[in-house]
Amino acid sequence: MTLLAVGSVALDTVATPFGRREEILGGSASYFGVAASYFTEVHLVGVVGEDFPAHHIEFFHRKGIDTSGLESRGGRTFRWHGEYGADFNTARTLDTQLNVFADFAPTIREEHRRLPFVFLGNIDPDLQRSVLRQMRRPAITVCDTMNYWIERKRDSLLETLALVDVLIINDAEARQLAGEEALLRAADKIRALGPKTLVIKRGEHGALMFHGAARFGCPAFPLEHVVDPTGAGDSFAGGFCGYLAAANASDEAAMRKAVAFGTVMASFTVSEFGVERLGDLTYPEIEARYRELRRFAYFDDIE
Amino acid sequence: MTLLAVGSVALDTVATPFGRREEILGGSASYFGVAASYFTEVHLVGVVGEDFPAHHIEFFHRKGIDTSGLESRGGRTFRWHGEYGADFNTARTLDTQLNVFADFAPTIREEHRRLPFVFLGNIDPDLQRSVLRQMRRPAITVCDTMNYWIERKRDSLLETLALVDVLIINDAEARQLAGEEALLRAADKIRALGPKTLVIKRGEHGALMFHGAARFGCPAFPLEHVVDPTGAGDSFAGGFCGYLAAANASDEAAMRKAVAFGTVMASFTVSEFGVERLGDLTYPEIEARYRELRRFAYFDDIE
Repeated sequence: MTLLAVGSVALDTVATPFGRREEILGGSASYFGVAASYFTEVHLVGVVGEDFPAHHIEFFHRKGIDTSGLESRGGRTFRWHGEYGADFNTARTLDTQLNVFADFAPTIREEHRRLPFVFLGNIDPDLQRSVLRQMRRPAITVCDTMNYWIERKRDSLLETLALVDVLIINDAEARQLAGEEALLRAADKIRALGPKTLVIKRGEHGALMFHGAARFGCPAFPLEHVVDPTGAGDSFAGGFCGYLAAANASDEAAMRKAVAFGTVMASFTVSEFGVERLGDLTYPEIEARYRELRRFAYFDDIE
Repeated sequence: MTLLAVGSVALDTVATPFGRREEILGGSASYFGVAASYFTEVHLVGVVGEDFPAHHIEFFHRKGIDTSGLESRGGRTFRWHGEYGADFNTARTLDTQLNVFADFAPTIREEHRRLPFVFLGNIDPDLQRSVLRQMRRPAITVCDTMNYWIERKRDSLLETLALVDVLIINDAEARQLAGEEALLRAADKIRALGPKTLVIKRGEHGALMFHGAARFGCPAFPLEHVVDPTGAGDSFAGGFCGYLAAANASDEAAMRKAVAFGTVMASFTVSEFGVERLGDLTYPEIEARYRELRRFAYFDDIE
């Protein structure tokens, strides 16, 4: 299947204990699209300003990503400036300038409306539904969100959740969305809102998936060093959706492998700044790390 | 193989958000021994006071545990009183009375000195070595410790670690022992101190095992409710050692399965107070949960 990915494209300034980068390529759609590009054809939908560097567009094209849906507007590109402390658990946002992203209202080009696989990045749930309304019966829709929308646009978010097949969020968001501390009970409550499949990302503690009666716990890939966690969640979603799209499947077995490929893509992202490592992979490297993760999690054959 | 287990036997008073129990059976050797008893023959070494209820001894005997090495002394049994808040992450100790445990100096009975498998529970590392000196070339020695000994008897602990095959500790202890925040690097440093195999327990986040060049990440068994986490780590060690002893193996494949069985036994313990669930199991129930854990962690066949 071919993927349509809607989300933010940004210029990030990031400081971590391992260094600092200024105005590097960032945004949820960027990380998602690059991660997914190793698996399938990706069409990006987003907005950038007139200051967006041409070499980032060229980079997307080198990754085989279609940018015809990436609108360029007068004004400045979305900028985020954040830093991480030694524990890497949460970014401290120093500055956010929405710029052209403030008025983002995605228009899906006619030739994209029949794409079978839609990823709705973390944007206003009103806009997520507007994308779905423009699409013609996609086979599978996957959605992300964040604490901001859970707090401020809960009703709209619930309307979106009723329309999507898969929700990918982190553990704090899951607890907040469900109003429930115990993660398994939170998962039940969230799936009752619509998504048949729920993936809960837990950073260094891996990911949980709920699908039908099945539960799957995937460990994080063991890494000596985390250099920059920015984009880990979006890269996870990109690997997850990319694998499913390439496999043309959404059954339990495919969902489990998709979580593992998501885990692998996130592990590449966090090992360098920005897309420095994510953007520089070969598919055999991805497969090798997938096999390593499988070996890491293995303890006995399934009968 | 037959197991010798040295550690504390206590009377615990525990309060959690789910209730309270007074003077129930506790202590590292109790949880360890009961968990291991489902897999192999267990000989307990410890000390209790003259007030230790006979029905706890009868309970050990019902589980097939040999208590001939459980010394009974004049004085009161070791008592611990603790409570847990809603997050269950750490116990708040309200009172500790060492009583007869303060002068515990394990003497290994002649008939136990040739037992092939030794578990050294969390006691003074001087005493752990005294046990090893009394044993005659055990095939495998597994050891636990805690922050108290890491801080106050570090040199003695390092001497003990040089003599044991397997160390089982939690993540905070691993970081403290290694003086290293990054867990994978901490693991390398700890294994350089002696133990060929290191198991790091991470509570609700599962366990990590390091053995030769292999790393294994086992998720915690997914539970709706945790009622009382007391004894989880000791039950883990009991399931781990019990499985290895029964399998009569200590290669990588057996170590991986042992971690999974440890995970399973810990999950039973935390689902009720004290040994209420752990003490009331059948082996088929243990195997069924092991298979469930395997299914939870599975995502692809190993080639």
